[in-house]
Amino acid sequence: MIANLIAKPSRLIIGLMSGTSLDGVDAAIVKVEGSGLDTKTELLSFTTVAYDDTLREKLKELCSLEHSDVAKVCGMNFYIADVLADAAERAVREAGLTMNDIDLISSHGQTIWHIPAADPADWSLVRSTLQIGDLSVIAKRTGKPVVGDYRTADMAVGGQGAPLVPYADFILFRHEAKGRILQNIGGIGNCAAIPAGGLPEQVVAFDTGPGNMLIDQAVHTLSGGAKSYDDGGQWAAQGAADETIVAEMMSHPYFSMPLPKTTGRELFGKAYAQQWIGRMREKGLSDADIVGTFTAFTAHSIARSYRDYVLPVMTVHEIVVSGGGAHNRTLLAMIAGLLPEQTVTSTDALGMSSDAKEAVAFALFGNNFLFGVPNTLPSATGAPVATIMGKLALPG
Amino acid sequence: MIANLIAKPSRLIIGLMSGTSLDGVDAAIVKVEGSGLDTKTELLSFTTVAYDDTLREKLKELCSLEHSDVAKVCGMNFYIADVLADAAERAVREAGLTMNDIDLISSHGQTIWHIPAADPADWSLVRSTLQIGDLSVIAKRTGKPVVGDYRTADMAVGGQGAPLVPYADFILFRHEAKGRILQNIGGIGNCAAIPAGGLPEQVVAFDTGPGNMLIDQAVHTLSGGAKSYDDGGQWAAQGAADETIVAEMMSHPYFSMPLPKTTGRELFGKAYAQQWIGRMREKGLSDADIVGTFTAFTAHSIARSYRDYVLPVMTVHEIVVSGGGAHNRTLLAMIAGLLPEQTVTSTDALGMSSDAKEAVAFALFGNNFLFGVPNTLPSATGAPVATIMGKLALPG
Ligand SMILES: Nc1ncnc2c1ncn2[C@@H]1O[C@H](COP(=O)(O)OP(=O)(O)OP(=O)(O)O)[C@@H](O)[C@H]1O
Ligand SMILES: Nc1ncnc2c1ncn2[C@@H]1O[C@H](COP(=O)(O)OP(=O)(O)OP(=O)(O)O)[C@@H](O)[C@H]1O
Repeated sequence: MIANLIAKPSRLIIGLMSGTSLDGVDAAIVKVEGSGLDTKTELLSFTTVAYDDTLREKLKELCSLEHSDVAKVCGMNFYIADVLADAAERAVREAGLTMNDIDLISSHGQTIWHIPAADPADWSLVRSTLQIGDLSVIAKRTGKPVVGDYRTADMAVGGQGAPLVPYADFILFRHEAKGRILQNIGGIGNCAAIPAGGLPEQVVAFDTGPGNMLIDQAVHTLSGGAKSYDDGGQWAAQGAADETIVAEMMSHPYFSMPLPKTTGRELFGKAYAQQWIGRMREKGLSDADIVGTFTAFTAHSIARSYRDYVLPVMTVHEIVVSGGGAHNRTLLAMIAGLLPEQTVTSTDALGMSSDAKEAVAFALFGNNFLFGVPNTLPSATGAPVATIMGKLALPG
Repeated sequence: MIANLIAKPSRLIIGLMSGTSLDGVDAAIVKVEGSGLDTKTELLSFTTVAYDDTLREKLKELCSLEHSDVAKVCGMNFYIADVLADAAERAVREAGLTMNDIDLISSHGQTIWHIPAADPADWSLVRSTLQIGDLSVIAKRTGKPVVGDYRTADMAVGGQGAPLVPYADFILFRHEAKGRILQNIGGIGNCAAIPAGGLPEQVVAFDTGPGNMLIDQAVHTLSGGAKSYDDGGQWAAQGAADETIVAEMMSHPYFSMPLPKTTGRELFGKAYAQQWIGRMREKGLSDADIVGTFTAFTAHSIARSYRDYVLPVMTVHEIVVSGGGAHNRTLLAMIAGLLPEQTVTSTDALGMSSDAKEAVAFALFGNNFLFGVPNTLPSATGAPVATIMGKLALPG
């Protein structure tokens, strides 16, 4: 079966991405030619299936020490696999295709826990990561081979299991004459900086800090739960950022940690946001000012990361933004203001939907797996070697 | 890589089995020829690596609603994968081989939860099963392709995800002229009854009830923790079973449930054993009588299961016992006494180590996966169709 797939001149692969924001599943249908560094991709269609609130609440329970247990992990591993299979089927339908046209499904799965470093207090809490959404359940439901559950392999060879997308960024966006930073703004922010004409080992990739996470939290709180994000950055645009507070926020130790580094909901989560909202209210800031201040903090954390870790080692001409944050025009304008030497644009300008980029990357990882070709970038994950991530489940 | 493996006339596969008893990992090195119903296996070597008490306690925490959480599942999924890789490496060393000689590792993984039917009280607790021991971690450690995490696929197509070994029993032990029951006595007891010259769909397979579980629990309690099982059945042999109590135990509803059926630690666990130990002590039974009574109950549960579900539909000539319980001579003699028409023997008499059978079965499942050939027996798991179980992780 696999031999037949790699013999084809091109494959139709569904890439499924379900991010840490717990907002839903992105599904990209991608035509993939070749493998490894010679991969060519063409995005045929893209769709997002939102999780409903009940599901999101259950997933949040699963992502907490207090409310999770083994039965919930067991059940949700199957439940969410069905949701992922639904998303794949919806994507196929919306593209006017049928599953018969599809060669492979590649699924990131839903991350529910990550242990970046062994816990000295408990020998069983070793470096590890946990993504759910059983691959066999997806394969049997859709009748297609499924590759997924990627991150564990990179951790097994000594990497952090993240960030993974820079490998695809290098393949899809490297440029002979332009140094580019691919900046994804999802729940958190992460970037991959690729020097002009550079080699894979020259890519510098890391998490820049919060992405939309703090802005979303502020909007949610200040709107009394009515809104979940600042559409287009309009709310922030109506206020003024408090630069003193932004400077204080920038003293967070994450920004002086050496590379490689990744962050998550632990550092810039709800508690962190609430604490600063309290401070800003005391100081008399309006709601718009508060949203503006979190937006400015996010922009500063991105720009300062470049100044500290990227610009000293390479020349950068373009910042290419992707992820939901690419829709926040206020945030993009602030980033552009802080980086006058660079052009700030979004992947859409380069012909790739900024929302679809991550899902396309996973299609590409699955394709490499079929060929037995490594699909990691050690310079991004910190692993000593490149490795073939993923596991394959068969239909039938 | 996979194409090369299936082109070979035979493959050397390590089968890894880690049972619900949480006693350790069985590793069988098996030479496998062919695939599907024409598979031929030769057991080259077998070894067991015991879990130490600290690990067993951690695993027990993971198997409980009260003491488990998502971080422990995440960490242990990696930790136990290392233990499984260790076992594979030890098996290779003890066989005088090196990993270079090995083509594939096939791992059952450690079951930590199983939801046989959807929980009406919580929509997220769907039918599901959870085995840990990340396949990529094993593959990267050993440098070998690894297939494993089998049970989810059978559940995904509507089966119970258990019992799996009857598929291998059919291939390895079917006989043209003799009706055989393959009886495994691990923590629980399970059987596969194969009529003489029968077809796969004629196999009757189910859990007979407790295996060594209750005997072990009684021995542990009565020896004040000094012993964990009744070696050779010697303790039971010194006492007399209380037939009234055995009859009462036999009124447990499990024995009148219709097929297909499986059981686990839920029904015949510690609480169940303690309650009966209390009753027997009140009645004045000696410790040896108590162990004898649990042993007799186990024998009766097996014999009655045959009388109710197997003997009405096929002629049986031989009972072939495997698993740790094959070493309990008192138990075997009691079973033989209850089934005067049949010969009671162990797989050893048929040239297959009774301890190794399950691990050999998993080697065979992994081999089928490589060929894209189903490795389930719907008549055993209750699934409407046979399916290819397993997921493949690659080294390198
Ligand atoms: N029109 C918009 N205006 C402003 N922000 C938007 C808009 N659309 C989406 N977003 C932001 O993008 C977020 C979702 O981004 P995305 O889907 O890239 O994250 P994710 O993939 O779930 O997270 P991660 O990449 O961290 O795993 C929303 O929570 C919101 O903050
Ligand atoms: N010499 C012996 N005498 C009596 N009983 C024994 C002996 N050796 C092993 N056993 C029994 O066999 C048990 C282990 O059996 P086995 O390894 O087949 O179980 P398992 O594979 O862990 O469980 P399961 O098959 O239910 O998942 C021990 O707990 C013990 O009760």
